[in-house]
Amino acid sequence: MATHTLTFRPTNKTLAVQTGTLITEAMHEAGLDLVQPCGGQGRCGRCAVIVESGSVRRRSAIRLTAADVDAGYALACQTVVEDDATILIPEQEKIERRLITDKSVRAVGVPFPYDCARDQTVQAFSVALDEPTLDDAADDLSRLERALAPRGIRNLDVPLPLMRELGERLRQANWHVTAIVEADDWCSPDGPPRLIELLPGDQSGAVWGAAIDIGTTTVSAYLVNLVTGEAVDSAAEYNAQITRGEDVISRIIYASKDGGLGELGRLVRSTITEVLTRLAQRNHIELNQIFKATVAGNSTMLHLFLGLPPGSIRLTPYITTVNHPRPALASEVGLDIHPLAPVDCLPGIASYVGADITAGALASGLSEADALTLFIDVGTNGEIVLGNKDWLVACACSAGPAFEGAGVVCGMRATRGAIEEVWINGTTCEPTIRVIGDVQSPKGDLRPRGICGSGLLALLAELFITGVVDKGGNFVAGAVGAVGAVGAVGAVGAVGAVGAGLRPARVREGDHGMEYVVAWANETATGRDIVLTKVDIDNLMRAKAAIYAGFSVLAHSVGVDLVDVQRLLVAGAFGKYINVEKAVQIGLLPDMPWERISFLGNTSVMGAYMALLSRDARRQVKAIAEKMTYIELSADNTFYEAFTSALFLPHTDASRFPTVAAVWGNGRGEHDSDQAART
Amino acid sequence: MATHTLTFRPTNKTLAVQTGTLITEAMHEAGLDLVQPCGGQGRCGRCAVIVESGSVRRRSAIRLTAADVDAGYALACQTVVEDDATILIPEQEKIERRLITDKSVRAVGVPFPYDCARDQTVQAFSVALDEPTLDDAADDLSRLERALAPRGIRNLDVPLPLMRELGERLRQANWHVTAIVEADDWCSPDGPPRLIELLPGDQSGAVWGAAIDIGTTTVSAYLVNLVTGEAVDSAAEYNAQITRGEDVISRIIYASKDGGLGELGRLVRSTITEVLTRLAQRNHIELNQIFKATVAGNSTMLHLFLGLPPGSIRLTPYITTVNHPRPALASEVGLDIHPLAPVDCLPGIASYVGADITAGALASGLSEADALTLFIDVGTNGEIVLGNKDWLVACACSAGPAFEGAGVVCGMRATRGAIEEVWINGTTCEPTIRVIGDVQSPKGDLRPRGICGSGLLALLAELFITGVVDKGGNFVAGAVGAVGAVGAVGAVGAVGAVGAGLRPARVREGDHGMEYVVAWANETATGRDIVLTKVDIDNLMRAKAAIYAGFSVLAHSVGVDLVDVQRLLVAGAFGKYINVEKAVQIGLLPDMPWERISFLGNTSVMGAYMALLSRDARRQVKAIAEKMTYIELSADNTFYEAFTSALFLPHTDASRFPTVAAVWGNGRGEHDSDQAART
Repeated sequence: MATHTLTFRPTNKTLAVQTGTLITEAMHEAGLDLVQPCGGQGRCGRCAVIVESGSVRRRSAIRLTAADVDAGYALACQTVVEDDATILIPEQEKIERRLITDKSVRAVGVPFPYDCARDQTVQAFSVALDEPTLDDAADDLSRLERALAPRGIRNLDVPLPLMRELGERLRQANWHVTAIVEADDWCSPDGPPRLIELLPGDQSGAVWGAAIDIGTTTVSAYLVNLVTGEAVDSAAEYNAQITRGEDVISRIIYASKDGGLGELGRLVRSTITEVLTRLAQRNHIELNQIFKATVAGNSTMLHLFLGLPPGSIRLTPYITTVNHPRPALASEVGLDIHPLAPVDCLPGIASYVGADITAGALASGLSEADALTLFIDVGTNGEIVLGNKDWLVACACSAGPAFEGAGVVCGMRATRGAIEEVWINGTTCEPTIRVIGDVQSPKGDLRPRGICGSGLLALLAELFITGVVDKGGNFVAGAVGAVGAVGAVGAVGAVGAVGAGLRPARVREGDHGMEYVVAWANETATGRDIVLTKVDIDNLMRAKAAIYAGFSVLAHSVGVDLVDVQRLLVAGAFGKYINVEKAVQIGLLPDMPWERISFLGNTSVMGAYMALLSRDARRQVKAIAEKMTYIELSADNTFYEAFTSALFLPHTDASRFPTVAAVWGNGRGEHDSDQAART
Repeated sequence: MATHTLTFRPTNKTLAVQTGTLITEAMHEAGLDLVQPCGGQGRCGRCAVIVESGSVRRRSAIRLTAADVDAGYALACQTVVEDDATILIPEQEKIERRLITDKSVRAVGVPFPYDCARDQTVQAFSVALDEPTLDDAADDLSRLERALAPRGIRNLDVPLPLMRELGERLRQANWHVTAIVEADDWCSPDGPPRLIELLPGDQSGAVWGAAIDIGTTTVSAYLVNLVTGEAVDSAAEYNAQITRGEDVISRIIYASKDGGLGELGRLVRSTITEVLTRLAQRNHIELNQIFKATVAGNSTMLHLFLGLPPGSIRLTPYITTVNHPRPALASEVGLDIHPLAPVDCLPGIASYVGADITAGALASGLSEADALTLFIDVGTNGEIVLGNKDWLVACACSAGPAFEGAGVVCGMRATRGAIEEVWINGTTCEPTIRVIGDVQSPKGDLRPRGICGSGLLALLAELFITGVVDKGGNFVAGAVGAVGAVGAVGAVGAVGAVGAGLRPARVREGDHGMEYVVAWANETATGRDIVLTKVDIDNLMRAKAAIYAGFSVLAHSVGVDLVDVQRLLVAGAFGKYINVEKAVQIGLLPDMPWERISFLGNTSVMGAYMALLSRDARRQVKAIAEKMTYIELSADNTFYEAFTSALFLPHTDASRFPTVAAVWGNGRGEHDSDQAART
């Protein structure tokens, strides 16, 4: 066998290796250890390196896109040397995800060119009024209107509570004031303009807005500077309604009880207040400096928020009171921002395709797409839209809250301390986890508290790929006989992988049936084992099956095949960093080239943000709602059949998931010829 | 002397009389007694008869218009027979005024051709909705809008409280409902339409409105059928704020005290509620079937009603918070009608020329007059407008509440039991009174409780004309030495004149100085003497002087002489039946031909009624407010001088009141040649 010279950059360490040597082996010999959470099976993609020059052969590039390969990326554990080569080892930080926690301030870029004067309905005008004299004895309001007229504000409507203070405020401010004015709204596009607040002096720089997404499980919000258009901060919290039911159906039932509707309204408002208070405090503003809010959310959530009884949403023929609520005042809806701020709920189209989806269609650009696009928002419900700029059809399927970390024993929201990614060693079945936390923390400092949606999805995929559970989601007896196996796998992010040495069984009989232990009590922040139970797996399976069935039936209903879909946009609680491979592996997403799939995060709050900023965007979301056609799955006999077929990993029909079938074999230790040749 | 035959109709009794016989003497001889409250001095006009044929000579026709004389009217006490004649004695009921009390239901004619569909902003639509199905799963609101679209209602705005009940109401009504909708208002002439109420079945016939006038002293309201336009009933009550100050200035001061503003607001709202409740009960409707209200009143009253601090109204340069308040909801202003009913306050133009005056200008037709017209509203303040369809100037003068019966020892509002007219016998100084009551009551049944504005005015005029008080308003010593004089004068209306016999002095020293006794304790409903004191007279003098000074200065300010005024319209608390002669005699109104003077009653509530009915009328009152120019009397040095000159009866410059000078001589017993010749 020929010997070749390998050069590792940026350290410029060189090494002589024989043809066919795996890059990971060479690196180990050179003392350059890479993290290999999956145990060198080419599944986690964490060992990606860049081949700057020379000749290598990639046995598998399953974690890499075509563009990645073109850029020279190779998986060190799956790539053998065939000639002299120079290999760049990327800095680990660069392939770490940018970690998001509720405590880290995050600025969201303004999504389009923003001109406050042109786009914004709520603006501040700093004006100096003429003082009254016997010769100029106009009333206070006319005086204010006179000062505002050159700014394009005429026939100002002043709500009574503000009118009652008008005289005193003008005089105390010595006739120099800042008027916060709502020029118009979508219901009254020609005005009249309405005074929201009158402040002494020039305070025209501090006009804030809130874009709010009310999820069944999670409430998210952006704090937006309405002058610059920038979303300066975001925050999220579990919807306090969860204690009264985990999905919309149980909430609707609870709302029908005596006092239930009022209680659910108070609970969600308390959550919103909590989120907004956090944002206000972090950014040193007062809640009543928030002069405008847009709200997205599914129809049930918006009904509960507005105090509308949702009862008819649950009963055939599934009717909402209103899909497109009129703007209201914050004081009317009980929102703790400026009491006269307009609160505008975005439009939904049906009981189960709400404003979160129209907002998502706006934020994702779906409604302007040329290509046939499938959009899915995975929250407690899964809502799916198929179409392009010419037509849109939508349906909904009840996924349950599992993917939001709720309804799962050790589930939690995707915040600091959540296990967000899991790899399982195919041989030892030992997990490597990544915990959401501060990348600056010393490794191992941050102990996990639970598992968030993306972690659950990854864990299920890994358990399936490594053969710990079977296609039906059942734990396989004897699959994890190999206890106390190979040495430590490099820790990633925060908590490291388990150390070497003899271990108790990862798969065991727990209080609720069989379960897999992801982290032992002495490794966790809670002092208790973090596990995934059979019941949890069943919940996850039902969730993913409902969504996949939704895809199938929706596409079928308009005569489209899933393989014709050119783009798949995934929104929702998973966040932006969901592992697409694993989502396909469990059969949640259709098996298609990964570059066609984009993960967009919370498009509902993003759409609310866009509508908050601009009249045009607000009009656009209204147009989307009018254009979108709702398909009622419960009226479609094929749905249940499609759901049942999808209750397997990845699906009863394995031919729909060709790439998964390949990896699954690999994961179960069925080595391919190259691997066999290597030994 | 020649003898003539007199025939009296309708009895056809005949009598032979000599030339020069007074008709009253002839009637007495024929056993036909007429009431002669003034003692036969030609001042009361109550002895008017119609000369159907023959020849008579009228010594005085001062109580008759030229048209009356043309029609044959003559005063029996002032007319002598010169040839055979036929005399018609009118039925007494026909010259009795139509008595108004709060207990009598009065329908006000619709003031213009009214077409609810064309004119009215608040209408009821009875509609049947399509029931939802899986194939037609539109939301409830869209379903309602679909049903209303053929009626011209689109983009319906549904206030949140109603939206919260929308679903249940539609279903309980089995999808057949009556929608009460406000199509637009002056602030939003293009809508969007707003749902006020949604009722089961067809209730489109019961849509009510209220036209309200908030006076400083009296609150008046009409209950209006918005379908037919008819004002089916009216009611009035003292403004409960009176206990916190009798004029606007003392109210403003009270409002500045801690809690004062809120208290005054509650007080006036309680009065409105009392008045409306009375109207509702009498007409068998509920208060929440009143779906619209318009409110007129002076600027201070509207500020207090709306909860706007009126402080700056009192202080130079006299600035209101707002002259033209925006429409609000009944629930916002605390009005006890339907909570979502629009409450529209009419526009004022200045601190002391408020919506009562623009309403009056609308109701009186002043703003469309060709002739130079003087309009005066005599309430607690006197507001005066001069102009025609091309221009309008206005001013205000503080008259005090005397003419509304407040601030006067025995004053009361013009309701049942109030003395509304007084005549004093020039010889005996004994009074004859007319009391507001039911004309159907047996004579003498109704005892007086006090004196209302018109009664006070009449009493002052009579005291002056009969020489009981002098030009300065002081009681003249010895003027009523003749105690226990001639026999009874015929009773009029209710309580009759005092009987024959010896009497105590009508003028006496009372607890508060000199006073005149109008009714003795044993004749009154209260068991106490009803008197007019020197202090009362001073109050009345100041009130009338302020108003006359206002006329003078306003006319002077635009270079017009009062004699050029072609019409004088008198509105306000006096009601429609004020005695014009007596108003001129005390110098309240300018001395001009009586036919140019019209008494209009409460034009403020009438204007509110017109604005309640029609968009056009509402636009018109807005245009009036924009056209009217306010003259600030306090900035005019000539006002105080004019006021001082007017502090006499009728005025220091007697040449301004030529007709009064003539009667005054007559009243003091200075017989003219004819009377001398008669004896």
